[in-house]
Amino acid sequence: MTSGIDRDATLSDLGEFGLIGQISGIVASTAPGEDVLVGPGDDAAVLRVRKGHVVVSTDVMVEGRHFRRDWAEALDVGHRAAAQNLSDINAMGGRAQWLTVGLAAPADLPAAWALDFTRGFAEECALVGAGLVGGDVSRADQIVISVTAIGACTISPVLRSGATPGDVVAICGRQGWAAGGLAVLGRGFRSPRVLVESYRRPAPPYDAGPTAADAGATSMIDISDGLLAEAGHLAAGSGVSLDIETGAFEVPEPLVAVGAALGADPLQFILGGGDDHALLATFPADVPLPDGWTRIGSVRALAAGGQSSVTVDGEVYDGPTGWSHF
Amino acid sequence: MTSGIDRDATLSDLGEFGLIGQISGIVASTAPGEDVLVGPGDDAAVLRVRKGHVVVSTDVMVEGRHFRRDWAEALDVGHRAAAQNLSDINAMGGRAQWLTVGLAAPADLPAAWALDFTRGFAEECALVGAGLVGGDVSRADQIVISVTAIGACTISPVLRSGATPGDVVAICGRQGWAAGGLAVLGRGFRSPRVLVESYRRPAPPYDAGPTAADAGATSMIDISDGLLAEAGHLAAGSGVSLDIETGAFEVPEPLVAVGAALGADPLQFILGGGDDHALLATFPADVPLPDGWTRIGSVRALAAGGQSSVTVDGEVYDGPTGWSHF
Repeated sequence: MTSGIDRDATLSDLGEFGLIGQISGIVASTAPGEDVLVGPGDDAAVLRVRKGHVVVSTDVMVEGRHFRRDWAEALDVGHRAAAQNLSDINAMGGRAQWLTVGLAAPADLPAAWALDFTRGFAEECALVGAGLVGGDVSRADQIVISVTAIGACTISPVLRSGATPGDVVAICGRQGWAAGGLAVLGRGFRSPRVLVESYRRPAPPYDAGPTAADAGATSMIDISDGLLAEAGHLAAGSGVSLDIETGAFEVPEPLVAVGAALGADPLQFILGGGDDHALLATFPADVPLPDGWTRIGSVRALAAGGQSSVTVDGEVYDGPTGWSHF
Repeated sequence: MTSGIDRDATLSDLGEFGLIGQISGIVASTAPGEDVLVGPGDDAAVLRVRKGHVVVSTDVMVEGRHFRRDWAEALDVGHRAAAQNLSDINAMGGRAQWLTVGLAAPADLPAAWALDFTRGFAEECALVGAGLVGGDVSRADQIVISVTAIGACTISPVLRSGATPGDVVAICGRQGWAAGGLAVLGRGFRSPRVLVESYRRPAPPYDAGPTAADAGATSMIDISDGLLAEAGHLAAGSGVSLDIETGAFEVPEPLVAVGAALGADPLQFILGGGDDHALLATFPADVPLPDGWTRIGSVRALAAGGQSSVTVDGEVYDGPTGWSHF
């Protein structure tokens, strides 16, 4: 898939400026973001902001921790690296426009890996009309990818802090599929394929953020580290408690199958899983939920003692709620 | 210097959210950037762009490659990480306003290192009125720091591509001091202190970029990887050749001393050194150079064969010109 270089060439063979030249070629051949006055190649990119506020988010992915080269192709890792950042902008109610990538990698990394990664990244950006506008490369012992996404919000951004007792809790997008895929990969399996593919290349509901903002969502968050963990961030940010109702979830057939095969409750993938980049939001109870959103719980006043909390069917949940990076 | 945590605590002891909480505390206690509507803590930062274009740059720093923990304190590494990104915005003629940091680090890194780094970073940002508005942390085998700086340009940004034959080449800021400091550290010395300090904590001429843009600079670049290497980027970007005149440099006394001690020509530090983040620019010959800028050469038409080149005193230079990362 990579043209002009030997598939066996390493980053060391290509050299820093050779690599940058190849990456620039890929970027130039994909859809630029809108309003890019100066793209990669200068000290900085120059961008035209038409109106509204600018929304910025940075996420780090580390080989062996967020991805494994034997579990996903470089193209998929590129899609996922872009998706998780595009999703952060989505979760504010914004639309991503420009992204930069800081890539640190071993000198013996196949150059084709870096270029396929770039291609996947640019393809995912193009799904929302965004473009890769800059970045940097350096040598390191391990692949570390740091992505910054910049977007625009034309209406007030939806924060984590606006949920109010009485609001409805709702979700949009697949939830638990990536966690199911990761679980089977961890046991050495490659199927159900639909779950493995969901882990390798998530399909975040990119239109759902701005739509929810327009509809009057009171708070919103991207589910990257686990549904209950992110619900906890919303609850803490808003000074409320949330109750999640498991009866609201239709457990998809592939998750039922994986649960049976691994001896796990498939609901665990839904409640504790991240990486699908579904959106979690709260809406006033009298607002009709936009298309694609499903009610999964309710916002309550603070629990006794003034501590925000997340309950499942009214009870404390003792399964895994998410992922901590240290 | 770090309050509220044990100096022996590691990132693993603190945990991801403990670390983020401490970092947020440091950020909250330093000057916020202007026009930050939502700072760290949500899915994305929200920023108000008043007018002009947005300028964005990303740089990666890797432990063992760009810095060593035994050669510089965390506070200094923080200053330097911010400085090199602020300098990229400077080199466009812009003013940096907002920065994000992606930090990957080993679980056994002392938490105090990460917090002192953050403090130094925020202090350097405050020098130009910019603020740390977001970021991410993850575990990795090695410290990798990826910084994105976002700024505003109220006049047309100055690119690498505008140099014209007949223009004057000029520099602003210390040049060669950091390279001299790095050379003595590499030999196990800690003096001359002024050079070592220049390496640890550069002092880029932050006002020089916008001033040069106002004065009519035709092209401009940040000298991070070596004066001649960056001159080569300007020459290639503009389709011209540059000649650098060594007689234009006053070799500072500490560099003379280091050259004598190490048996090196001190001009090598000036011509091949980076990391001071001086600015290199071209100006029309009839424009008076702004304060702080020194003429060091001239822009010529393309060399025979149509190849852009950089010469030193009219001759091909065969010493080191800069640094490549693979």
